[in-house]
Amino acid sequence: MTELSPSLEALVAELGKLPGIGRKTALRLGLHLLLQAGRTRELAAALLRAAEHCRFCQKCGNLGEDELCPICRNPARDAGLICVVEQVPDLLAIERVGEYRGVYHVLGGVLSPLDGVGPEQLRLAELERRVGGGPVREVVLATSATVEGDATALYLQRLLQGGALRISRLARGLPSGGSLESADQLTLARALDGRERLS
Amino acid sequence: MTELSPSLEALVAELGKLPGIGRKTALRLGLHLLLQAGRTRELAAALLRAAEHCRFCQKCGNLGEDELCPICRNPARDAGLICVVEQVPDLLAIERVGEYRGVYHVLGGVLSPLDGVGPEQLRLAELERRVGGGPVREVVLATSATVEGDATALYLQRLLQGGALRISRLARGLPSGGSLESADQLTLARALDGRERLS
Repeated sequence: MTELSPSLEALVAELGKLPGIGRKTALRLGLHLLLQAGRTRELAAALLRAAEHCRFCQKCGNLGEDELCPICRNPARDAGLICVVEQVPDLLAIERVGEYRGVYHVLGGVLSPLDGVGPEQLRLAELERRVGGGPVREVVLATSATVEGDATALYLQRLLQGGALRISRLARGLPSGGSLESADQLTLARALDGRERLS
Repeated sequence: MTELSPSLEALVAELGKLPGIGRKTALRLGLHLLLQAGRTRELAAALLRAAEHCRFCQKCGNLGEDELCPICRNPARDAGLICVVEQVPDLLAIERVGEYRGVYHVLGGVLSPLDGVGPEQLRLAELERRVGGGPVREVVLATSATVEGDATALYLQRLLQGGALRISRLARGLPSGGSLESADQLTLARALDGRERLS
């Protein structure tokens, strides 16, 4: 079998380290880039620019280009309301809704002992410090509706509770547009448990 | 809605130009890279090395690092047998079988008028020159078993036929391991048409 040329092999190996990209896809991406002269260098330049300029917000862990991210710098945002999310894409998803006016705290993952992620691996001390040090009224736990997300929320609840701090969790129930028939048992059970009284 | 930082936005835009990668995946990949310090620069370095060193074989269009690719340079390969493929991954797939001892010709695509790919966009003149100029006994048309692949093979057959040149096409039939029941009508029809007499 013919080997790839050394530099292509190295590129395929690097691309193959990306999440969800296997060797076959990595080879396809690598060839695609090399087939279009200039694209390879453009992507490399974008990567280097991002590596140079992007940094994590010292306060919330969001990505920005300064010490504090645009959300933490924005005086119109309510610093008394902290929404705790797993990763930056979760923050972006909530921002897309356009209704949330508080600030965020990015944990950097969920508790997952099997994957070696314990409390020390997440940005928990920073969160405790923020909650303890400022006029924080409410913490919204917006981890995923998964076993790990629930466990992390429970851990955070125990860690933070006390005083007048309100701790909340995103609502669980039927997803909008979802039919009752196609909902799984757990979703339906949570929707029943959390039923809202109308009158 | 919060905008991404300019350098991250530029990176996501570049990643999103890759085939099969939408904006959401591009954002996930970009964040993944930035979360692991050093990985972004390593990928950029691999891209630059590949852009600098990789080049297409002057003869067959395969990717290598010299004027001629390792296959064209190999005196043990039969230069009288040319296998015509669409793209470099197809060549690699045939090499993986490990039985083919001839050389290749990479077209760079298939005829597809709707996508603006005509004969001028493919490496057809180079193929004609190779077939006309050397002791080529046989050309194996190994384009895909698709409408475009078949049309390209037919075009090549008409372009090249004449003299003692043998032109062949990859066999069509049931895929190995495929059940008859699950085979589509066209595959089954081709398998019947091409049935081999056993006795």
